Amino acid sequence: MSFRIGSGIDFHQLVAGRDLWIGGVKIPHHKGALGHSDADVLLHAICDALLGALALGDIGVHFPDTSNEFKDIDSKILLRKTIELIHAEGYKVVNIDSSLCLEAPKIKPHVPAMQETIAGIAGVTIKDVSIKATTTEKMGFVGREEGLVAYATVLLEKV
Amino acid sequence: MSFRIGSGIDFHQLVAGRDLWIGGVKIPHHKGALGHSDADVLLHAICDALLGALALGDIGVHFPDTSNEFKDIDSKILLRKTIELIHAEGYKVVNIDSSLCLEAPKIKPHVPAMQETIAGIAGVTIKDVSIKATTTEKMGFVGREEGLVAYATVLLEKV
Amino acid sequence: MSFRIGSGIDFHQLVAGRDLWIGGVKIPHHKGALGHSDADVLLHAICDALLGALALGDIGVHFPDTSNEFKDIDSKILLRKTIELIHAEGYKVVNIDSSLCLEAPKIKPHVPAMQETIAGIAGVTIKDVSIKATTTEKMGFVGREEGLVAYATVLLEKV
Repeated sequence: MSFRIGSGIDFHQLVAGRDLWIGGVKIPHHKGALGHSDADVLLHAICDALLGALALGDIGVHFPDTSNEFKDIDSKILLRKTIELIHAEGYKVVNIDSSLCLEAPKIKPHVPAMQETIAGIAGVTIKDVSIKATTTEKMGFVGREEGLVAYATVLLEKV
Repeated sequence: MSFRIGSGIDFHQLVAGRDLWIGGVKIPHHKGALGHSDADVLLHAICDALLGALALGDIGVHFPDTSNEFKDIDSKILLRKTIELIHAEGYKVVNIDSSLCLEAPKIKPHVPAMQETIAGIAGVTIKDVSIKATTTEKMGFVGREEGLVAYATVLLEKV
Repeated sequence: MSFRIGSGIDFHQLVAGRDLWIGGVKIPHHKGALGHSDADVLLHAICDALLGALALGDIGVHFPDTSNEFKDIDSKILLRKTIELIHAEGYKVVNIDSSLCLEAPKIKPHVPAMQETIAGIAGVTIKDVSIKATTTEKMGFVGREEGLVAYATVLLEKV
């Protein structure tokens, strides 16, 4: 058996006048994440973890934020393309764990929908996709609600 | 063989008038970690990593900081309950790695006691529990000694 | 088969009058990383992840920044010593994934040289060494270009 691990991290500013997409789900909030795509911090961290496990570059290499092709794009499409790259290399996802750092809003009610979305694209069950959340206890730019951060870790196995 | 990986992150403010519990050990310091429980940043990150590996939710789901049951609770109890959940799912801990980010105090003298405490609860040896520490080089809220952060990574194996 | 995972994190200030070493490569920039050694944030995070996987302590234990022996030292030497410790324990590197958080400069053009350097020391191929990069979207001390952070994750296998 052959395994690989990967980890990813992503940051986005929170600003008025943008939608807040996290884990492929639109979350009601008075601020949204700023970015070239839909700025889904969680899906971006997961994409980076998947790419990193097989040393395929990073999300900026595959989906450059200077390209019109990816302007306002649904990050679920980026995740789907990333999973295709993983499968093309002969690997499958064993499990995905992730942590969201944000002060507000509470994301717990949205976690099952996020798990279902990600598991569906990654070809695993919702028991293989973990989404955790924490505040930073009012500290730093996350604590001041200026932005949010996502960390993701993945385990892949050679098919 | 079946493996799973998990990762956790936790933050607490450092304030006067609180004890500083890290890794199940009380560390002499002029500030302590603020929180609903004993605010043990390292044990919380490890709990989250363990829960995350099996997509069992996060520490806030299992031990809500709105519950009186967990007010000022010893986080070793939370770790024990988390390990029981892992075992109930048919998994055991292979190894735990962790990093503490704090400017002061030096935690190196306390690491062996932390390893022994965590290993005892997790049912592994001290060679399976790693606790590393770094400052943030005076930068950010950790650098200003306003708070501390812990990161944990775990590998689980199906029994 | 026996696996272990490890993770590391490192921080350095960016200041004028220092060279910027990242991943064993000197990168042209108007600021460099401040530290006792060459302050290579990526190699330090990787060393810590390797040490952490086998609970061998951290980079501060093995290469103390209070020791003249390590003043201005090339961190490639530290990585080589770390890899020797891993091999002495009977383990080999399966893969290394890493993320650099820095606002500038762009490190993408330097990634292949970093991969080659690290892979050569770690005894793996460049397909086993991943180096990703992201900004923090202008937020925090990384966003203000006061410093940089590296995260590394490693998977080891018993030989």
